[in-house]
Amino acid sequence: MSGMKATGEKNMMFFSGRAYPELAEEIAANLGIEMTPTRLHDFANGEIYARYLESVRGCDAFVIQSHTAPINQWIMEQLIMVDALKRASAKRITVIMPFFGYARQDKKGRGREPITARLMADLFKTAGADRLMSVDLHTSQIQGFFDGPVDHLFAMPVLASYLRDKLDPEQTTVVSPDTGRVRLAERWADTLNTPVAFIHKRRDLDVANQVKVHEVVGRVRGRTCVLIDDMIDTAGTITKAAEALYEQGATNVLVAATHAVFSSPAVDRLKNSRISEVVVTNSLPLTEDKRFDKLTVLSIAPLIARAITEVFSDGSVTSLFEGDS
Amino acid sequence: MSGMKATGEKNMMFFSGRAYPELAEEIAANLGIEMTPTRLHDFANGEIYARYLESVRGCDAFVIQSHTAPINQWIMEQLIMVDALKRASAKRITVIMPFFGYARQDKKGRGREPITARLMADLFKTAGADRLMSVDLHTSQIQGFFDGPVDHLFAMPVLASYLRDKLDPEQTTVVSPDTGRVRLAERWADTLNTPVAFIHKRRDLDVANQVKVHEVVGRVRGRTCVLIDDMIDTAGTITKAAEALYEQGATNVLVAATHAVFSSPAVDRLKNSRISEVVVTNSLPLTEDKRFDKLTVLSIAPLIARAITEVFSDGSVTSLFEGDS
Amino acid sequence: MSGMKATGEKNMMFFSGRAYPELAEEIAANLGIEMTPTRLHDFANGEIYARYLESVRGCDAFVIQSHTAPINQWIMEQLIMVDALKRASAKRITVIMPFFGYARQDKKGRGREPITARLMADLFKTAGADRLMSVDLHTSQIQGFFDGPVDHLFAMPVLASYLRDKLDPEQTTVVSPDTGRVRLAERWADTLNTPVAFIHKRRDLDVANQVKVHEVVGRVRGRTCVLIDDMIDTAGTITKAAEALYEQGATNVLVAATHAVFSSPAVDRLKNSRISEVVVTNSLPLTEDKRFDKLTVLSIAPLIARAITEVFSDGSVTSLFEGDS
Amino acid sequence: MSGMKATGEKNMMFFSGRAYPELAEEIAANLGIEMTPTRLHDFANGEIYARYLESVRGCDAFVIQSHTAPINQWIMEQLIMVDALKRASAKRITVIMPFFGYARQDKKGRGREPITARLMADLFKTAGADRLMSVDLHTSQIQGFFDGPVDHLFAMPVLASYLRDKLDPEQTTVVSPDTGRVRLAERWADTLNTPVAFIHKRRDLDVANQVKVHEVVGRVRGRTCVLIDDMIDTAGTITKAAEALYEQGATNVLVAATHAVFSSPAVDRLKNSRISEVVVTNSLPLTEDKRFDKLTVLSIAPLIARAITEVFSDGSVTSLFEGDS
Amino acid sequence: MSGMKATGEKNMMFFSGRAYPELAEEIAANLGIEMTPTRLHDFANGEIYARYLESVRGCDAFVIQSHTAPINQWIMEQLIMVDALKRASAKRITVIMPFFGYARQDKKGRGREPITARLMADLFKTAGADRLMSVDLHTSQIQGFFDGPVDHLFAMPVLASYLRDKLDPEQTTVVSPDTGRVRLAERWADTLNTPVAFIHKRRDLDVANQVKVHEVVGRVRGRTCVLIDDMIDTAGTITKAAEALYEQGATNVLVAATHAVFSSPAVDRLKNSRISEVVVTNSLPLTEDKRFDKLTVLSIAPLIARAITEVFSDGSVTSLFEGDS
Amino acid sequence: MSGMKATGEKNMMFFSGRAYPELAEEIAANLGIEMTPTRLHDFANGEIYARYLESVRGCDAFVIQSHTAPINQWIMEQLIMVDALKRASAKRITVIMPFFGYARQDKKGRGREPITARLMADLFKTAGADRLMSVDLHTSQIQGFFDGPVDHLFAMPVLASYLRDKLDPEQTTVVSPDTGRVRLAERWADTLNTPVAFIHKRRDLDVANQVKVHEVVGRVRGRTCVLIDDMIDTAGTITKAAEALYEQGATNVLVAATHAVFSSPAVDRLKNSRISEVVVTNSLPLTEDKRFDKLTVLSIAPLIARAITEVFSDGSVTSLFEGDS
Repeated sequence: MSGMKATGEKNMMFFSGRAYPELAEEIAANLGIEMTPTRLHDFANGEIYARYLESVRGCDAFVIQSHTAPINQWIMEQLIMVDALKRASAKRITVIMPFFGYARQDKKGRGREPITARLMADLFKTAGADRLMSVDLHTSQIQGFFDGPVDHLFAMPVLASYLRDKLDPEQTTVVSPDTGRVRLAERWADTLNTPVAFIHKRRDLDVANQVKVHEVVGRVRGRTCVLIDDMIDTAGTITKAAEALYEQGATNVLVAATHAVFSSPAVDRLKNSRISEVVVTNSLPLTEDKRFDKLTVLSIAPLIARAITEVFSDGSVTSLFEGDS
Repeated sequence: MSGMKATGEKNMMFFSGRAYPELAEEIAANLGIEMTPTRLHDFANGEIYARYLESVRGCDAFVIQSHTAPINQWIMEQLIMVDALKRASAKRITVIMPFFGYARQDKKGRGREPITARLMADLFKTAGADRLMSVDLHTSQIQGFFDGPVDHLFAMPVLASYLRDKLDPEQTTVVSPDTGRVRLAERWADTLNTPVAFIHKRRDLDVANQVKVHEVVGRVRGRTCVLIDDMIDTAGTITKAAEALYEQGATNVLVAATHAVFSSPAVDRLKNSRISEVVVTNSLPLTEDKRFDKLTVLSIAPLIARAITEVFSDGSVTSLFEGDS
Repeated sequence: MSGMKATGEKNMMFFSGRAYPELAEEIAANLGIEMTPTRLHDFANGEIYARYLESVRGCDAFVIQSHTAPINQWIMEQLIMVDALKRASAKRITVIMPFFGYARQDKKGRGREPITARLMADLFKTAGADRLMSVDLHTSQIQGFFDGPVDHLFAMPVLASYLRDKLDPEQTTVVSPDTGRVRLAERWADTLNTPVAFIHKRRDLDVANQVKVHEVVGRVRGRTCVLIDDMIDTAGTITKAAEALYEQGATNVLVAATHAVFSSPAVDRLKNSRISEVVVTNSLPLTEDKRFDKLTVLSIAPLIARAITEVFSDGSVTSLFEGDS
Repeated sequence: MSGMKATGEKNMMFFSGRAYPELAEEIAANLGIEMTPTRLHDFANGEIYARYLESVRGCDAFVIQSHTAPINQWIMEQLIMVDALKRASAKRITVIMPFFGYARQDKKGRGREPITARLMADLFKTAGADRLMSVDLHTSQIQGFFDGPVDHLFAMPVLASYLRDKLDPEQTTVVSPDTGRVRLAERWADTLNTPVAFIHKRRDLDVANQVKVHEVVGRVRGRTCVLIDDMIDTAGTITKAAEALYEQGATNVLVAATHAVFSSPAVDRLKNSRISEVVVTNSLPLTEDKRFDKLTVLSIAPLIARAITEVFSDGSVTSLFEGDS
Repeated sequence: MSGMKATGEKNMMFFSGRAYPELAEEIAANLGIEMTPTRLHDFANGEIYARYLESVRGCDAFVIQSHTAPINQWIMEQLIMVDALKRASAKRITVIMPFFGYARQDKKGRGREPITARLMADLFKTAGADRLMSVDLHTSQIQGFFDGPVDHLFAMPVLASYLRDKLDPEQTTVVSPDTGRVRLAERWADTLNTPVAFIHKRRDLDVANQVKVHEVVGRVRGRTCVLIDDMIDTAGTITKAAEALYEQGATNVLVAATHAVFSSPAVDRLKNSRISEVVVTNSLPLTEDKRFDKLTVLSIAPLIARAITEVFSDGSVTSLFEGDS
Repeated sequence: MSGMKATGEKNMMFFSGRAYPELAEEIAANLGIEMTPTRLHDFANGEIYARYLESVRGCDAFVIQSHTAPINQWIMEQLIMVDALKRASAKRITVIMPFFGYARQDKKGRGREPITARLMADLFKTAGADRLMSVDLHTSQIQGFFDGPVDHLFAMPVLASYLRDKLDPEQTTVVSPDTGRVRLAERWADTLNTPVAFIHKRRDLDVANQVKVHEVVGRVRGRTCVLIDDMIDTAGTITKAAEALYEQGATNVLVAATHAVFSSPAVDRLKNSRISEVVVTNSLPLTEDKRFDKLTVLSIAPLIARAITEVFSDGSVTSLFEGDS
């Protein structure tokens, strides 16, 4: 026969943007590999330059970026990195965004709004992404925004296994800070074997991060309350919820959330609140000024490293991706 | 100058599949127009044939189909109708699906599941749909599944204006039958000016329509409860929820839902339950055997007719599409 | 160098919808493999649920479904299965449809009709199909409807090798039941080394399956006639053609066709006709009520199994795909 | 309200490539318009340059090119003209190819062949074509190769109305020169109210335009035969068919075909044959050296002009596009 | 006939991002219209929110944004605005970027770089842009990066008509600051009727904005030199070029450029240089700290306003888009 | 586990169109492989037929064609070859066009022109090309026209290493024949360590290949001049440039260019000119009538062969693709 034959080989490479290199390094250490050296810098007018310092031809590429402030810059950097991989003949490109930027704009709450979460999924597809990997999407439906496989990891097992030792299920209630997270609270309650409650409030659609707290629905008097959420942004909702719980007789309030966005004045609000402990992951960078005594940060690097291994080796540890089943 | 000029003109045409022609006729009557005559029949082996009996060149086409049983047949018929419109040079095609079939499969609840709601959106795009119109999507995120404009209508104003006259807000609680509808219950409660409660239960992912009811969270004793949902399928969830409410001392339980899927044994369950009234819309056909004494059916034809008019005339009655704002 | 290496491996998996599992099992037996266990069921309102019970990451997936009644349901199930494979990271997806549903609507016979066969090809592409495999397409041009490779298998060698032993070429004529199959009849005649004839009739485009038989063109008097077609649906055409042949002096009439659609009243017509034998394949399921004495069913499972092997191993038995060359 | 309003207007413009400007001029005359002046020339190395000499912004563009020799050059020119229209903001682009180049390669006759007719449809789509218009496609399925509306015009009414006056139906048979055109012959026979016959032969797939004539199937002795085809390329098939008809006792043989490709040695073969008259259209240019005494050329310019008018004005003269209904 | 008719109408709307509202206002004033009110703000974590305060259904939308620092944020805002327009049923969306961000990364200068200018074009296409409008693209080939019409405006007529009055062609040379702009210099020289020269230097690919000036090629001694460029970023190139010109005996050096990026330390360099005048446009915002005595800023608002009018009214003032012809 | 496993294998195959088989053979010899036998011929009307004579399933395909006259035919042949590969299940398709046809139409020089170079890139993408490989693109931006990886090879090292031995850098100047190639001249000057100059002229946009030579900018008197260009088409520009150089006192003029298009009357012009040597590559075929005494042809076959090897083996000899780094 004509032509030439060679045996096939798979080659995994791991890349990181500049938003949070420490997490990437921790994941690489978990994987036992070196990250592929990458030149990234800003031109004087803010345009981003990217170049890989090794050949990436034919590789199974994983590109991580934390969607933290300045969020638009880091998203653009990741898009540019994907374009460079595509044009350099990477075989498959998996985009890792531990926190999916713009996930909250996942629907038109009112007319003439964008659906920016879908836009993000499409932008990454256009740049060349074959697959997405993310942790605790704001809504699971975001999986359906991407035209391809999405590996949706759950951090709850990490957070819950830490909290389980500290709590007596008999004396604990899992509380959703608003009506949008009750389903998530239910999943937590199933895991911790506790009842569930929520805070009934109304959000003013025109003013971001401002809420009107209404009332606690469910049994919280005399109990330890675990307020759960997928993310803490300015901490307005969560600290008002905590206040309402104490007012209704809660004896203790802890907070558990995957994504510590911690936009100002989140840290002040949390520090000054009566919340006894805030447990989060390192899906987003937490600089020193965002750390405080009652904050506990758990690492998701092992989770992401295991997921990368599964994807690269076509494995099937589905419990990893499904958390509670 | 070369060529030929003519004044522009817009031409709206309205088409219906065979699933529920009565609703289409009612909408056409509201619009004051005739439906465009369409030949639709099944070949002996079940393949569907479609043909329009008038020219549709250049028209602004609206094609309605109710996604009722046999649901796959009616969805396929609508896809085929869209293909025929595209190939016959319709200028713009708006697909109207009052109830969006497969809306519940809007995420991967477990690994290796499809996201069929996204698939549906893509299939209609592929067939040639430029726009979608639907009523009370199971989750608002489904808007983001379609790559184009989605007109998301709300039936709550229709349902709520009927119920408002019957209820004393002081004595009423809006109740979500599970943790997934608490946000919707909150919107109802805002509209009716009542408190909100929910039922805490767990759904077995492997067995459709089977649930384990847990407990009522919120104040219901001595009150009239309005159980709300976007759809009633087998009515298992809603009737168990009603039972739980009576057990917790509710004096009366009504049910309000947009989509009356009413799969067997929904009608028996509802008839035999202690629910005093079930209020739904005609987004899906309700044959005689699906009707019973305490059932009230409100028409959404005026809502859809107004929406079509807005879309055709590029109008801006945003309250129509946003319901509560 | 950075990253991690591993040796490449190919992994074939075989899946079946619920339309005709027996054929799939027979193919799997021919391949010497187990089918991948798959959960498929209908929700109460007819929506289909699909889930694979093993990891399919990176696999070379083959998904078979017979497009039999209720045809729209089984096509939709196959589309949903493809979507689930795509989202679960299958590497390549080959859709096997032994009978290609809607193949007869492969052109606009009149204005404002759909081209449903092209729509089907596009729907499968959209769902995620990389390749199609089918047997005896109604017209070969349907290969061009799919944007990707199509493996077009021919069943004629299977049917012809069965018939060759029974017939004397000197006394036989191959007959096309209408003007649309004369080319196919010619290919049969080349294979069996006989003359060719056809029936001249007119089909009323508005009424499916009704035909006006005109006259036999070609030599049939005193000869055995083999009426050939790609499919038998209601058997109206074929039984009227047989009648015309007997009227013109044929001594015996046999029928050979690949796809036994056998919509009512096909079985009655065939049983009550003077046709001496009907030879078909099992490309579509033939339940007991569709079987009768003079029916012979030949299996295409070995043909499809060999084709799957070729595709998986990048083989080149072109005679398999080309039948007569 | 903000912004600015203006009344809508439609503007049709008509463009021609260099392959056959005479036909374009004739169509323009039928439309009563001027063609839009266009600069087209070849650079020294054969690359084609195109530029429109008037603004085409917002126009409804119709671009005609005859796919005649050198066929690849003219197809490329038409593609380039479409690209220039798209980039110059034409609103809608209809590509007119009276003869659809590469229509005969509409399937994989053998493995590892292209499906060039589908490729052509895709190339025009990619360049920017919204719609196609063509006359007498080699197979109707080619309509389905284009992802958009196709106006498929029929020249048979033009040809048949010319022949009807010359023929006595009682003494005439319509004959297909091979088994691939029997369906077309049947449509002619329906129109002329005559019987139908065909020539049974075998085509050698490896050698273009060479055939082995076998035998006449049908009644031709003592009758006038009208050999019909969609195109005459080298005229090998048609002249051998005529010879066979005379051998079987035909008293007279005429030929009718839409597309006069007339590749060498078609003209010699036709001139030297016993065919009494050859009737074709001017869908392709017929230079003086391709004309001969017994050739009759009918114009399709009125047909195309009417079709353009219908498309521009969103009209519905469906008989135009359907010919026989 | 069925359906409903209405006369067509065109409706132009003009929108601006937050990067440089003053330019947008000036363009609107030139157009004699009001801008469509738009809500744009940042959430606490930097995510951008957009909403239009009037219906945009069916409008011909023009969305302007200046790609100035922070450039990634403003590009993302424009993308989000386009998505919101698409989902709100705008009929056509023209993106106006007076300065095309990332235009300099229009090729792979070295292996494993992105082609970010193409990526930008694709991102806007994906978001929903139908057309692009830009001024003085870094290279004209960028027009080809967008899959659709690009209106490429030239500011040279604006700049040149200002300079023409100040210069004696007999005593002037147009100079390209490097080898990449010699073609542009030639076009200027044609317009001003002067000779042309250039500076031969080498750019270090790894270090942005650093150059090694070599030598002046062309006649400059005793002459006024006009250094031209499409943009001035850090002004390193241009000031070193001016220095070289003075060293070679130039009597006076002026600078003319379209885009005043003016990244630090451009202003200091220009102020401290011996350049006598710097002429630019307001394609990018020039805050007070970026203005200095010898800087002249000409407005491109009239140019863009005329272009919008042409596009909206399908006009043909081609000299507008072609500058020099 | 279910299914079947096999070890992966890569299989490279190399195909050539009919434009310049000698170059393909030379590359194959460099690779040490046999070309895959391919049947290619023209039908009587000029339509091209293609078929591969071996299975190409799963192969890594490289398809070479020289875009020489008749250029549209050879481009179409390559498109058809790609389509056939795609439909025959080639795994990856790399299109090799040593000279990229239509590269000069890479922008709209005036309104209402096409951007044919982008069109070409899109046509190949549509046909099924995954990657492009080309030598010395007319502008580097053309890389960005293709949506996928482009391997851009540089022939300058081949040409420069030949010239280096013949020239004394102290006495040599590299000259660009017009303002569009000054950047390229600079790169040559860097390599040969010489000064740079250029010819200032104006091109009449309406008349191809006609130029008005103006003046030499730079030092050439008493020096050897190397006129460089990416291609020589009719040689009008280059011979006039040479004349101008001799007029300005150059002692010797050589010419170096990658692509020898040599359209008439290039050969006469070059032969009759005072140019002492013309050095080109064999990227395009040079028949005997295009060869003359002072012509030197260097082979790029080794360069392309090495690039194919790199691509097939996912190698990283970036110097190959970057030339000067």
